[in-house]
Amino acid sequence: MKKFVNDPNDFVNEMIKGVYLANEDKLKWVPEYNILYRADLPKDKVAIMQGSGSGHEPAHIMCVGPGMLDAACPGNVFAAPPMDYVYECTKLIQSEKGVLHLINNYQGDRMSWDMAREMAEADGIKIGVVIIDDDVSVNNSTYTVGRRGVAGNFFVIKAVGAASAKGADLETLVALGEKVNSVTRSMGMALTSCTPPAKGTPIFEIAEDEIEIGIGIHGEPGRRRDKIKSASEIVDELFTAIYEDLPFAKGDRVAVMVNGMGGTPISELYLLYGLAAEKCEEKGLVIAKNYVGNYCTSLEMAGFSLTMVKLDGEIEELLSEPAEIPIRVF
Amino acid sequence: MKKFVNDPNDFVNEMIKGVYLANEDKLKWVPEYNILYRADLPKDKVAIMQGSGSGHEPAHIMCVGPGMLDAACPGNVFAAPPMDYVYECTKLIQSEKGVLHLINNYQGDRMSWDMAREMAEADGIKIGVVIIDDDVSVNNSTYTVGRRGVAGNFFVIKAVGAASAKGADLETLVALGEKVNSVTRSMGMALTSCTPPAKGTPIFEIAEDEIEIGIGIHGEPGRRRDKIKSASEIVDELFTAIYEDLPFAKGDRVAVMVNGMGGTPISELYLLYGLAAEKCEEKGLVIAKNYVGNYCTSLEMAGFSLTMVKLDGEIEELLSEPAEIPIRVF
Repeated sequence: MKKFVNDPNDFVNEMIKGVYLANEDKLKWVPEYNILYRADLPKDKVAIMQGSGSGHEPAHIMCVGPGMLDAACPGNVFAAPPMDYVYECTKLIQSEKGVLHLINNYQGDRMSWDMAREMAEADGIKIGVVIIDDDVSVNNSTYTVGRRGVAGNFFVIKAVGAASAKGADLETLVALGEKVNSVTRSMGMALTSCTPPAKGTPIFEIAEDEIEIGIGIHGEPGRRRDKIKSASEIVDELFTAIYEDLPFAKGDRVAVMVNGMGGTPISELYLLYGLAAEKCEEKGLVIAKNYVGNYCTSLEMAGFSLTMVKLDGEIEELLSEPAEIPIRVF
Repeated sequence: MKKFVNDPNDFVNEMIKGVYLANEDKLKWVPEYNILYRADLPKDKVAIMQGSGSGHEPAHIMCVGPGMLDAACPGNVFAAPPMDYVYECTKLIQSEKGVLHLINNYQGDRMSWDMAREMAEADGIKIGVVIIDDDVSVNNSTYTVGRRGVAGNFFVIKAVGAASAKGADLETLVALGEKVNSVTRSMGMALTSCTPPAKGTPIFEIAEDEIEIGIGIHGEPGRRRDKIKSASEIVDELFTAIYEDLPFAKGDRVAVMVNGMGGTPISELYLLYGLAAEKCEEKGLVIAKNYVGNYCTSLEMAGFSLTMVKLDGEIEELLSEPAEIPIRVF
């Protein structure tokens, strides 16, 4: 296993510690529960939290900051956060206006967050829930009933984060999060597998000339195994699946994200973006906002996902609001 | 070869096209010479340009924007830009206040930029030159006389970009660039090799249990081949080489960059940052600014480099000025 790691069992803890040390002025850290939260936590707004498995960074431990999440509490690599992580995090950041739970649609996550919500509600904390399930690849996959939640999550966080900063109440945020999720579609594919540190071996095998179309972010099988193809052929397939699913239509204003799976260089991601932009133009879609980089990854997997969001005035405005998180250039 | 590519010979062109399409409102593109330049190019300041081989993205084609480069003109993957790319780019962005050439110290780049500078000077364009050679790993390497220029380049660009936006003249910018380079030290290492698209095979072989310490950004040999070690042992070695080289000293304010080589997930980069931050604390260095992510890469190579800059008031202030480039989260 070729990874930058000390004791593989400390991987998540040491990674979160690094994020904390790089942002000591902005974040607070509760190591026992993998919680990072805003040092300047406002008490007069709805508090927003997320936290699925680790290994998908920057989702979601690196998405905490003004205009985004107020806290994250991830589990171990590719494992839902234990119920007590979610419960402790909810109590820690609670606000009179309530707490919003953003949950990717995986059975493990749903169970953990459901139980934690019940415990927090018994304490008198008001909770709202938004389930994210933007992946068009498959239904009822290895770890889900229904569709999987993948990179589209970013847009839900950004929209509700901006709206909560402007004072929206919990019911409004739940409706907004559901609206954003309902117009967001993603599909991913992989060139390579990846290796969880504590496992030490790849989560699946794939031949030197094979790719997996429609893969999940934990390596769950996608639509099919295929031989490697040109970048254009791959973009065509993902774009078409997404385009037809909503469906999008000529004249729609859209946000387009080309998300790296962790091991894909940014040069290739921009090449893919150029091809996706051409597909949008061909279909008469207007790209109002674009995102190219790593947003929701699978450790060091080489691959990418394409996400498109159909914008209305409200969503476009919220996506354009300022926000600040650990992932930055300067 | 597992890459997102159509015709491998079009890789650089298609990549730059993607960057352009994602920033059509901010950049202009001259495909014949691989030039991207600011659409809002100011004529009342020194123009700043850079361009070494492609394959190091975001360096430097994705570093064009207000407060950074005014233009970039990279060559093919791991190849210096041809003389005429540099000459045409210089003419295109020329300003009465002069043009600043930022050049990584490789023989191929030096030759190309020297010849282009002579041609531009014959046209009456005033040129200033800063050579970047921040890599402490080796002297007189495969492609260099003296030290190599690597990720430290980012700090030179940022500082002269900010100073030029504030109106500094060419002589001042040359002196500033040389000052930043003189207090910047980097060292890199690799877990894996990488494959240029048009070559189709890895640039070097490395065993499953081996790492290369002190590697160059084109896979040039480093200080030695070693067996894989813990993240802490690797950070210790790079940190010590950098620390002793300047040397840094207790009480110094520093900028610390953990730069991914292209295929390393950001989770591992933050884990490495945490370890580097602990080394700084142990030595009494004060980290005033930190940078974790991909800044100067080698295609999909897994590995990282550590860069430290000894700050004075002027450099720290310039690094904190606003800037905007294609690489962004929101």
